[in-house]
Amino acid sequence: MEEILKRFSRREMDIEEACGELKLESIRKVKDFARIDINRSHRSGIPEIIFAEGKSSAEVADIAMALATAKDFALISRAREKEAVEIKKRVGENNEFEIARNKIAKTILVKKKGYEFEKRGKIGLIAAGTADRPVADEARVVAEVCGCEVIKAYDVGIAGIHRLVEPLEEIVNARVAAIIVVAGMEGALPSVVASLVEIPVIGVPASVGYGLGGKGVAALLSMLQSCSPGLAVVNIDNGVGAATFAAKCVRGKPKK
Amino acid sequence: MEEILKRFSRREMDIEEACGELKLESIRKVKDFARIDINRSHRSGIPEIIFAEGKSSAEVADIAMALATAKDFALISRAREKEAVEIKKRVGENNEFEIARNKIAKTILVKKKGYEFEKRGKIGLIAAGTADRPVADEARVVAEVCGCEVIKAYDVGIAGIHRLVEPLEEIVNARVAAIIVVAGMEGALPSVVASLVEIPVIGVPASVGYGLGGKGVAALLSMLQSCSPGLAVVNIDNGVGAATFAAKCVRGKPKK
Amino acid sequence: MEEILKRFSRREMDIEEACGELKLESIRKVKDFARIDINRSHRSGIPEIIFAEGKSSAEVADIAMALATAKDFALISRAREKEAVEIKKRVGENNEFEIARNKIAKTILVKKKGYEFEKRGKIGLIAAGTADRPVADEARVVAEVCGCEVIKAYDVGIAGIHRLVEPLEEIVNARVAAIIVVAGMEGALPSVVASLVEIPVIGVPASVGYGLGGKGVAALLSMLQSCSPGLAVVNIDNGVGAATFAAKCVRGKPKK
Amino acid sequence: MEEILKRFSRREMDIEEACGELKLESIRKVKDFARIDINRSHRSGIPEIIFAEGKSSAEVADIAMALATAKDFALISRAREKEAVEIKKRVGENNEFEIARNKIAKTILVKKKGYEFEKRGKIGLIAAGTADRPVADEARVVAEVCGCEVIKAYDVGIAGIHRLVEPLEEIVNARVAAIIVVAGMEGALPSVVASLVEIPVIGVPASVGYGLGGKGVAALLSMLQSCSPGLAVVNIDNGVGAATFAAKCVRGKPKK
Amino acid sequence: MEEILKRFSRREMDIEEACGELKLESIRKVKDFARIDINRSHRSGIPEIIFAEGKSSAEVADIAMALATAKDFALISRAREKEAVEIKKRVGENNEFEIARNKIAKTILVKKKGYEFEKRGKIGLIAAGTADRPVADEARVVAEVCGCEVIKAYDVGIAGIHRLVEPLEEIVNARVAAIIVVAGMEGALPSVVASLVEIPVIGVPASVGYGLGGKGVAALLSMLQSCSPGLAVVNIDNGVGAATFAAKCVRGKPKK
Amino acid sequence: MEEILKRFSRREMDIEEACGELKLESIRKVKDFARIDINRSHRSGIPEIIFAEGKSSAEVADIAMALATAKDFALISRAREKEAVEIKKRVGENNEFEIARNKIAKTILVKKKGYEFEKRGKIGLIAAGTADRPVADEARVVAEVCGCEVIKAYDVGIAGIHRLVEPLEEIVNARVAAIIVVAGMEGALPSVVASLVEIPVIGVPASVGYGLGGKGVAALLSMLQSCSPGLAVVNIDNGVGAATFAAKCVRGKPKK
Amino acid sequence: MEEILKRFSRREMDIEEACGELKLESIRKVKDFARIDINRSHRSGIPEIIFAEGKSSAEVADIAMALATAKDFALISRAREKEAVEIKKRVGENNEFEIARNKIAKTILVKKKGYEFEKRGKIGLIAAGTADRPVADEARVVAEVCGCEVIKAYDVGIAGIHRLVEPLEEIVNARVAAIIVVAGMEGALPSVVASLVEIPVIGVPASVGYGLGGKGVAALLSMLQSCSPGLAVVNIDNGVGAATFAAKCVRGKPKK
Amino acid sequence: MEEILKRFSRREMDIEEACGELKLESIRKVKDFARIDINRSHRSGIPEIIFAEGKSSAEVADIAMALATAKDFALISRAREKEAVEIKKRVGENNEFEIARNKIAKTILVKKKGYEFEKRGKIGLIAAGTADRPVADEARVVAEVCGCEVIKAYDVGIAGIHRLVEPLEEIVNARVAAIIVVAGMEGALPSVVASLVEIPVIGVPASVGYGLGGKGVAALLSMLQSCSPGLAVVNIDNGVGAATFAAKCVRGKPKK
Repeated sequence: MEEILKRFSRREMDIEEACGELKLESIRKVKDFARIDINRSHRSGIPEIIFAEGKSSAEVADIAMALATAKDFALISRAREKEAVEIKKRVGENNEFEIARNKIAKTILVKKKGYEFEKRGKIGLIAAGTADRPVADEARVVAEVCGCEVIKAYDVGIAGIHRLVEPLEEIVNARVAAIIVVAGMEGALPSVVASLVEIPVIGVPASVGYGLGGKGVAALLSMLQSCSPGLAVVNIDNGVGAATFAAKCVRGKPKK
Repeated sequence: MEEILKRFSRREMDIEEACGELKLESIRKVKDFARIDINRSHRSGIPEIIFAEGKSSAEVADIAMALATAKDFALISRAREKEAVEIKKRVGENNEFEIARNKIAKTILVKKKGYEFEKRGKIGLIAAGTADRPVADEARVVAEVCGCEVIKAYDVGIAGIHRLVEPLEEIVNARVAAIIVVAGMEGALPSVVASLVEIPVIGVPASVGYGLGGKGVAALLSMLQSCSPGLAVVNIDNGVGAATFAAKCVRGKPKK
Repeated sequence: MEEILKRFSRREMDIEEACGELKLESIRKVKDFARIDINRSHRSGIPEIIFAEGKSSAEVADIAMALATAKDFALISRAREKEAVEIKKRVGENNEFEIARNKIAKTILVKKKGYEFEKRGKIGLIAAGTADRPVADEARVVAEVCGCEVIKAYDVGIAGIHRLVEPLEEIVNARVAAIIVVAGMEGALPSVVASLVEIPVIGVPASVGYGLGGKGVAALLSMLQSCSPGLAVVNIDNGVGAATFAAKCVRGKPKK
Repeated sequence: MEEILKRFSRREMDIEEACGELKLESIRKVKDFARIDINRSHRSGIPEIIFAEGKSSAEVADIAMALATAKDFALISRAREKEAVEIKKRVGENNEFEIARNKIAKTILVKKKGYEFEKRGKIGLIAAGTADRPVADEARVVAEVCGCEVIKAYDVGIAGIHRLVEPLEEIVNARVAAIIVVAGMEGALPSVVASLVEIPVIGVPASVGYGLGGKGVAALLSMLQSCSPGLAVVNIDNGVGAATFAAKCVRGKPKK
Repeated sequence: MEEILKRFSRREMDIEEACGELKLESIRKVKDFARIDINRSHRSGIPEIIFAEGKSSAEVADIAMALATAKDFALISRAREKEAVEIKKRVGENNEFEIARNKIAKTILVKKKGYEFEKRGKIGLIAAGTADRPVADEARVVAEVCGCEVIKAYDVGIAGIHRLVEPLEEIVNARVAAIIVVAGMEGALPSVVASLVEIPVIGVPASVGYGLGGKGVAALLSMLQSCSPGLAVVNIDNGVGAATFAAKCVRGKPKK
Repeated sequence: MEEILKRFSRREMDIEEACGELKLESIRKVKDFARIDINRSHRSGIPEIIFAEGKSSAEVADIAMALATAKDFALISRAREKEAVEIKKRVGENNEFEIARNKIAKTILVKKKGYEFEKRGKIGLIAAGTADRPVADEARVVAEVCGCEVIKAYDVGIAGIHRLVEPLEEIVNARVAAIIVVAGMEGALPSVVASLVEIPVIGVPASVGYGLGGKGVAALLSMLQSCSPGLAVVNIDNGVGAATFAAKCVRGKPKK
Repeated sequence: MEEILKRFSRREMDIEEACGELKLESIRKVKDFARIDINRSHRSGIPEIIFAEGKSSAEVADIAMALATAKDFALISRAREKEAVEIKKRVGENNEFEIARNKIAKTILVKKKGYEFEKRGKIGLIAAGTADRPVADEARVVAEVCGCEVIKAYDVGIAGIHRLVEPLEEIVNARVAAIIVVAGMEGALPSVVASLVEIPVIGVPASVGYGLGGKGVAALLSMLQSCSPGLAVVNIDNGVGAATFAAKCVRGKPKK
Repeated sequence: MEEILKRFSRREMDIEEACGELKLESIRKVKDFARIDINRSHRSGIPEIIFAEGKSSAEVADIAMALATAKDFALISRAREKEAVEIKKRVGENNEFEIARNKIAKTILVKKKGYEFEKRGKIGLIAAGTADRPVADEARVVAEVCGCEVIKAYDVGIAGIHRLVEPLEEIVNARVAAIIVVAGMEGALPSVVASLVEIPVIGVPASVGYGLGGKGVAALLSMLQSCSPGLAVVNIDNGVGAATFAAKCVRGKPKK
């Protein structure tokens, strides 16, 4: 603004031009406020994740290529075979990009070759049963893209609590910023972990289980009802939400 | 029936009398089938419990005195002060009966003096938090009346799993027929116990906790969703149901 | 531990070795506590059941073969055709194992030839309607693997209560340790049975019925609300849970 | 209409008057259609019942006196002490009316002295437990006002099915037009009754029971899920609805 | 019984034979009580309907042929193409039976040629929209098999209340014993009909509509909440239940 | 009516004829009342929309052709490929009609060639995310048929509130009669819009989102709970309802 | 902004001052955007309503006096006796304000004496039963404060549809901008009204009714499921929401 | 352990003593594992909070005094007047302790005089409406006890989003470790905040609002459904849970 005023006082622009420039400046300011989340990934390491469900494969692929071109990479969640096909078509002979599809996590990562995700810090990731693996893997892939090193322990349920001891110690010793705990059915594991550690625990109910309280409902409710301090939750199967939350926690930790 | 036929053939009764007797006999048979639960307490040690809610104090007191006179004792659940008052009025100067009211369990026991409940076997009883005590105590009082010795451990929640180790060993070593585990909020304790022991575990959700899944709902759902084998449940706060179920389990155990 | 100390005092091991050995010993102790459920099947007759849903057929088959090799048999619930195919591939020309698939119960049993399940005691099994048969059959197969002899009566609903009389007498006379009662729709049968017998009754709601309260919800709620004493429940369609619970009850009964 | 035309043709009214009269006639016709439920009680024996909840006592009393004056009687449901007080004030020294309050049914009946309800036919009324009595009594009072003779059997639950046999036979033999069955908790009794008789059965869930499915919800759902033919239901605690429905059934029966 | 005693007194049978005979007699009595619903169709015109869902086509066809042979006809609800195929196979060249499949009602009727259903009386049947037709048709087919003449009016919703006037008058004038009203979405039609007529109205919610309260839930709830007297309901889509209830109402009406 | 009376007084019709005519007249009057919604589209611009779900394609096509013939056009919602095929068959070589299918909105419009929808006024239409587009498009197509010019802004969610500013200003400046706001997941956008403008806002929850509160449930509930004044809602995915409501609002605005 | 530039060019302010002034200007712009709802009442006639629940009486009274002083009046909803007392204390001897409390609507209006609400247009207001009156009255009071003339018709339920005809005609003839229809229990009235008129209808479910779907839930769901076009809803008992929405509709109508 | 071995090898203890010591050591190890949460407050600053609901005032006071004596302070949540009275009794003339009761937060803090809570870092705390203040204040008091400096902004709802700008900037600039956002009704504020900042946001639904989705249910569901990244939630009204979670986040931040 000072610049405009100076140029105006130097008669390099007339009052109308100055007025116009200042208005634009002011609009940009309004936009800036609004745009407070724009370029978020550059500052916080939390990029926009493309949610494939409810979009056509072509739409998903177009958005992904645009993002990957602009930001060096794009991550798609809940992706199917057909999105991968569409993206491959677009990448084609182009040697610039590489595509990594994780069938269990249902993610597709399009990345400029050689691009490396900055390592910002560590998080823990624990999954109660093998059926929880897709949700846990989604969280892992997202967290890695957000700059987190993920220390993971799968198949650690309360029906065999002893399996929890060693991996939990490893996670605690790694001085992680947060621990994501994925559990379906009765969903008790996050409560148990939160009662044992002094680290923020993010519970993720997995849509596992049938009958009353099935599909993750009992898991979610029991996490909400937990008597352990320091447990927060995200919605059923929301690996993306847990990972982005954990990534925000990582930013508060000093890097070493 | 043979007896009737013999007496008929000995002419000790004429055909009409025989017919009448046989009809009565047959009616008794029908009734016997129907009445298969009558006098249940004498055979199984599981007496009828009087549920005070939704009845007037006078009604409750009348039923209780009738039962106590006929069967030596009567137990009332969900009883308030006023039922105790009404019963005291009825017992009055009568030295035959004694009254024991448990304010926490909300039970009143009217018993002939000197009457002793037969000891049939042992059960375990574990409660997660102090707020679960009323439900646990209701179960304990009912189980004792049903002839069970109750080995109990209160305030043993998963937020401090270590407190579980010793009492659980004691209960297992006592060779109980079943373990009742009362838990509110996230209700994870019964799952943990069922994963550790080879004894039937009966989960009782307690109406503790607020918000979504509160009042025992999350506890019930997570018990229903438990991945531990050998866990069955009764409804929220149903200490009577858990105790009578456990008492039935006791009967199958050899006495020593 | 004494042994270690002795060998240490005899200079058969130096202080570091002794320290290491003792640490190991102490770790084993921690593990022992944790591992309290390990080898459960050998002591309690309740083996781990492999839940096929949410796992790939290959995973299921691998786990099953490992278990069958180690423990002489493996049982899979909610199994489909493809799991059977995968297991057959693995068994191949091998004459050691035999495979039994129950299409109604949706179970697959892989068993060393000649291996016999120990008979530990009896349970009753009652199903209200033909649509409840898959759940009842799952319970039956699991219970047999857990060492229970199953006395069963199917198609015995309250819309024709008379059909209940004879099979119930047979079950009671067999002195079973527990009775599993499977019922969908209004789910009243377990209440009726529990009001008639002195044996623990485990209600299993079946996901039968449409409209409000359908898919087993009304059945579950009415079992939870039952006024009959001595009725506990497991979740909708949870034949495995009911059978393992009943098997734990059997263990408390003296063998004859 | 003919009359109007005749008078018009006799010049007793001019074209405008005739037109006006005919319009009025036509409006009356429209009104007649609309008013199809007016004076319902005179034809069908089903009077309007005043629902006291959500109205002031004064309002209730005013409506009741107006109805009683016009139709010889008025019935109030869900009435409290204060409505009775207000009505007594209005009746005052007036010898014409008598007031009958049923504290259990929570009804107040204001009736011209000497007025007798026509007897149109019989219905059966069965209640499962003592806690269901208020709902059953509401149904009874309403049914009697609607001209039904009520043959009732209380305290006949499925926890003691044998108690059902004799009263049910009595009800069937009385050739009732419909049977109202009130039941709380698991609400199985209406299903049992409907499976035994050839008479329409109206299930009324009572708001009895606690925990999941409590307050009559399980009862309602299990009645909706009933496998017995010929069972319809009204809402929880809706004794008025069941009684008016039964009264409509009575009208279809020939009087004797 | 008298006969047995007489023969015994005449020495035509010894005490053991008499005892045996009398026991049998008494068993028959027990059975009679139990069997109170056997042969129901012969007395009440309400035969057993075979519910095809959850049964194999072969099972359905076998049961249907057995019933049709014994009782001259069999009715299957929720039947698909494959049940018809199976039944055709069984009927084959046999000229005795004829098969009528209603694709909209999803019913199959197997009937001895020439067999006529007795006409016992009339019922009304009203459906709000075209989407409610399958439920209405199921009710119609079942009612006809139960001996009811059905006076029907389809596509009569409250969004065009005027369409209700004429068919309702026709139904009332036919002096039907009951009116079945099928409605999905907001389900208001049964309330409107019940407010206009003096005949019992049975509301059937149809699983029509999407979003909150969809699939018939809002319809069911608003029927339960109806302020019109004399409205009872069955579960969502339960055309069979409404028709059998209506058929029981018909029995109470004098035939003309 | 006057005409009839005149003709009657002129003896051009006898009393019976006059009576008959007048009755007919009166019936027409009754019908008129009933038929108050008939020809609605001509007066209010809100035609009947044919809901294709739950109807056969042939039925849908027949109704559509009948409507299109009578009213110049017909609009089908929730239409699939097969309805388009059926309609094309019927239109065939006929040059009179043209067919427009919107695959995203799932609508089919059959229209006489050259027929133009009257422009009655403007409405705004805002959609939060790309997944909400089908619902928004349904609303748009319906609104256009109802005579509304639609000013739309898609992909304007609260996760990037800044994108809302410009389109909202455009909509407000266009002086629309109402704004439809479609949003899934947490459904906060309608609240935000209603807090910013002085125009009636109609919230439409879209069935987007998974887990607890998914499929539009959280969106609907949070719109119902909104603290912004002047927000009303329709059911989940109900684009038709929102559009017809908005169209009614348009009629109240003076045209310019 | 031009002004600032001019003064800057005239050297009436130096570059720092100009910069500061321009920044302030730009901040004011940002604020303006944010403050887009400030002073809303002056432009749209929709003032802020003070919701008394969950606030202390003193807080409510303070806010009310502040608003009344600034804007000439303040309206409190869900107000109790104690808020009136607190406000009276504050007004005290002050002759400037007058207080109007509506006990049924539970509103308190504090108003400068002589202040008159501008009349902007008309709305209709229909209530189904007497129990719906508090909600209807809340809507009426709010609407009047928002400048609406309210044409009301109470006690017009579908159990007596004929009562609807005349008041509805009156409302339609008054050319209202919108009709608010309040209904509890089955909530069918808004559907009926919306099917008859060409005016936007806002359904308000009232928390009337007991049992399943009680407290307004069935009413809300059936309004959401309505097949009538042009019906939108607000939450249960939300008279304020309906009235403010209707007031926004009024603004679109030309005044006469 | 080495020490023991050394002393054993030096003959300072015999084999039995060594064995005993080593066993004790090993037990301590087991206990250590179990006791992993013991003394938690000393390490993590997260003390045990006493939840007063469902405990007697005497119990609460006893536990509080014990904790305060051992750990210098004790905090009680959901405390009422009577707990304060009981604690005052116990503190009595004792000059060592001081008591601070927060009536809005419903907390009581008993603290040794002069004891100061360590300042570990900062968190933000935003509340949408005045009705959310009790929940927000509970979170604030708990967070302060856990060593957090709380930067708070109350009454910042989305119905006036502009009020959010300044306080949010202040909070972000303070470099807080986490932001707690309390919101009732539609609960949109946490989503908005999480979309604007790069800090972990913990949503707390407040039990504000009536009708469907009231009492915090809509708020919870919409937070779970949020499309903003980095938002986790705790249960309705769970200020304690949010504060302890935030306090765990603080620990990960470097102190300055």
